[in-house]
Amino acid sequence: MNAIAQDLYADLDTPAAVVDRARLAANIARMQDHMNALGVALRPHVKTTKCLEVVQAQIAAGARGITVSTLKEAEQFHAAGITDILYAVSMAPSKLPRALALKRAGCDLKIIVDNVAGAEAIVAACRESGLALPTWIEIDTDGHRSGITPEQPELLDVARVLDAAGLVDGVLTHAGSSYELNTPDALAALAEVERAGCVRAAARLREAGIACPNVSVGSTPTALAARALDGVTEVRAGVYAFFDLVMHNVGVCRQSDVALSVLTTVIGHQPDKGWIVVDAGWMAMSRDRGTSRQGQDFGYGLPCTLDGEPLAGWLMTQANQEHGIIAPVDGAAPGDVTERFPVGMRLRLLPNHACATGAQFPEYAAVDESTVEIWPRFYGW
Amino acid sequence: MNAIAQDLYADLDTPAAVVDRARLAANIARMQDHMNALGVALRPHVKTTKCLEVVQAQIAAGARGITVSTLKEAEQFHAAGITDILYAVSMAPSKLPRALALKRAGCDLKIIVDNVAGAEAIVAACRESGLALPTWIEIDTDGHRSGITPEQPELLDVARVLDAAGLVDGVLTHAGSSYELNTPDALAALAEVERAGCVRAAARLREAGIACPNVSVGSTPTALAARALDGVTEVRAGVYAFFDLVMHNVGVCRQSDVALSVLTTVIGHQPDKGWIVVDAGWMAMSRDRGTSRQGQDFGYGLPCTLDGEPLAGWLMTQANQEHGIIAPVDGAAPGDVTERFPVGMRLRLLPNHACATGAQFPEYAAVDESTVEIWPRFYGW
Repeated sequence: MNAIAQDLYADLDTPAAVVDRARLAANIARMQDHMNALGVALRPHVKTTKCLEVVQAQIAAGARGITVSTLKEAEQFHAAGITDILYAVSMAPSKLPRALALKRAGCDLKIIVDNVAGAEAIVAACRESGLALPTWIEIDTDGHRSGITPEQPELLDVARVLDAAGLVDGVLTHAGSSYELNTPDALAALAEVERAGCVRAAARLREAGIACPNVSVGSTPTALAARALDGVTEVRAGVYAFFDLVMHNVGVCRQSDVALSVLTTVIGHQPDKGWIVVDAGWMAMSRDRGTSRQGQDFGYGLPCTLDGEPLAGWLMTQANQEHGIIAPVDGAAPGDVTERFPVGMRLRLLPNHACATGAQFPEYAAVDESTVEIWPRFYGW
Repeated sequence: MNAIAQDLYADLDTPAAVVDRARLAANIARMQDHMNALGVALRPHVKTTKCLEVVQAQIAAGARGITVSTLKEAEQFHAAGITDILYAVSMAPSKLPRALALKRAGCDLKIIVDNVAGAEAIVAACRESGLALPTWIEIDTDGHRSGITPEQPELLDVARVLDAAGLVDGVLTHAGSSYELNTPDALAALAEVERAGCVRAAARLREAGIACPNVSVGSTPTALAARALDGVTEVRAGVYAFFDLVMHNVGVCRQSDVALSVLTTVIGHQPDKGWIVVDAGWMAMSRDRGTSRQGQDFGYGLPCTLDGEPLAGWLMTQANQEHGIIAPVDGAAPGDVTERFPVGMRLRLLPNHACATGAQFPEYAAVDESTVEIWPRFYGW
């Protein structure tokens, strides 16, 4: 551990969510460059970071508009001056007043829906308010969650309900099952399925005489793996800004690309068991155990030195609310943990899932080589 | 579903964390009555709720002081007028300035430690500041996490370091492995192990001429199962205020005692799969899958009607960040989900783990038969 790193973190209480600004910038540039090369717009999903400083960096790098997972995200980012916002969760009728309030306030809000009842509620609310909420129809290209498959009759049923009020503005899909893959070829194949399905849905609308200007696809793995995106107008991706151990296992980043870590302090030991007890438990790391279903299980996180070097042979193996237990794995000998990891020593933990870990913190400590900035983030709905 | 329940929830946006006030009051009374019958004080752990209204109800029912898991909890509750506070995570040296600031502000803060290095840091900080932080030594009675076992030589090593500055104020233990049990006899046996071990540790201190006024034990399951607590001065427990599905599986509450639920709205379906898609995902429920290791796995939560009646045969089986999938389990026939659970319908979800689910929300909607109050809660460190 070098002295600069130690000084840098000295004023932070633990646990703290640390963002490595150099890694963040490289991750943002990598995705934007790939989208530029493919000739499509990038609309980052801000649900991962919920942080204005990160989103401003994404826009400065070339992103066009943002994707949100809650209307609170839309409200917060609109208040900060961002107007081109897509709310990418199928619209609940009870949320329409909040969406219309955003529209009324000048937000260029787009919403999505995948069913006739929801579409009818959108049309009714728009007619009543005299406002138009441009609506994208959600397409199911991999069977993992929501949406209408490209060939389903219901696609045109929903489109016609919306079209009667002039609200059809696009189609979108999210091949979230990409998280279950781990080879470039499998990811590229799924990216093509995602592209082709969404483009086909757009074509069906157009064949029915309904304009469909926007064709939106994406997930971080398929976005990075896509080799061509003909017919697609934009890509959505979120976790790429931070990356995490799940993405490492999917194969789209290295451990040394992960920009989010949790700073923690050693508070005790169980020397006979080789346990180091730290003050980051599941409240800090989240309960996300996404890597448990992948090729390499990282427990609750991968401990690193303050410089970011992974401690080979160690994992956070257990977590209580405010306690984490770091222990040797695969039969590694712990040695004298009280000597090697004394009380008060600090470590950084790479998380399984950046979206879940980030959400546990009111702010990020954004660090470069010599400075720490505090970047607020928000939560709730 | 009755009309009153529907009206009650109509103004809440979803997802929302709903607290059933009648259940909360009954849970608080049950634990307090049991402690009164056993002749010990109750020091509730506020990490579950982080909510002043709940803690005030616990104190009104007879609780003496509170237990906190973070110094932020101590600061928030001290600012609200509560002075008798135990910070029950082994003290990190870097947190001593914050603890001393609380002490200086008039908080009767107690801290804990389980190692010599930590004890030396406490003594040094107290000497330097001229303040005394009464310190309880953490005892390990079930091997699940931190602490010194009652017979270990290190117990007296730590005690002597603290005693040289007059700081020894008690011993405490937490038999957290109680969460892995599920019969009254096994829980009662562990409660006795927890009691006997902590009382024995206190006796060793006293034999060495060190006063040990406080003997603190507890976890919700052992607290409720304990049949006698001779030698114990106080019990700590937290999750009992809300209870949850993990506690139901442990056998210390009924489903109808669970006071915390997540209100959600149906936003879509995959009728062929029998899936109901709702707007509560893991961001609302948390990623806690505590029941997956127990006798009955409740997925990400048990759906109920607005009246709180469980929907037998259904679970939230999958969760993405802002999407939950509710599906039939054990081969139950879903029927026409679009008819039975139309878009816009609202449900309540009982959580696996109330501490984790509550932490996802900035506030609770506290409901009784006819009113909704908003109770703030806080997060972070």
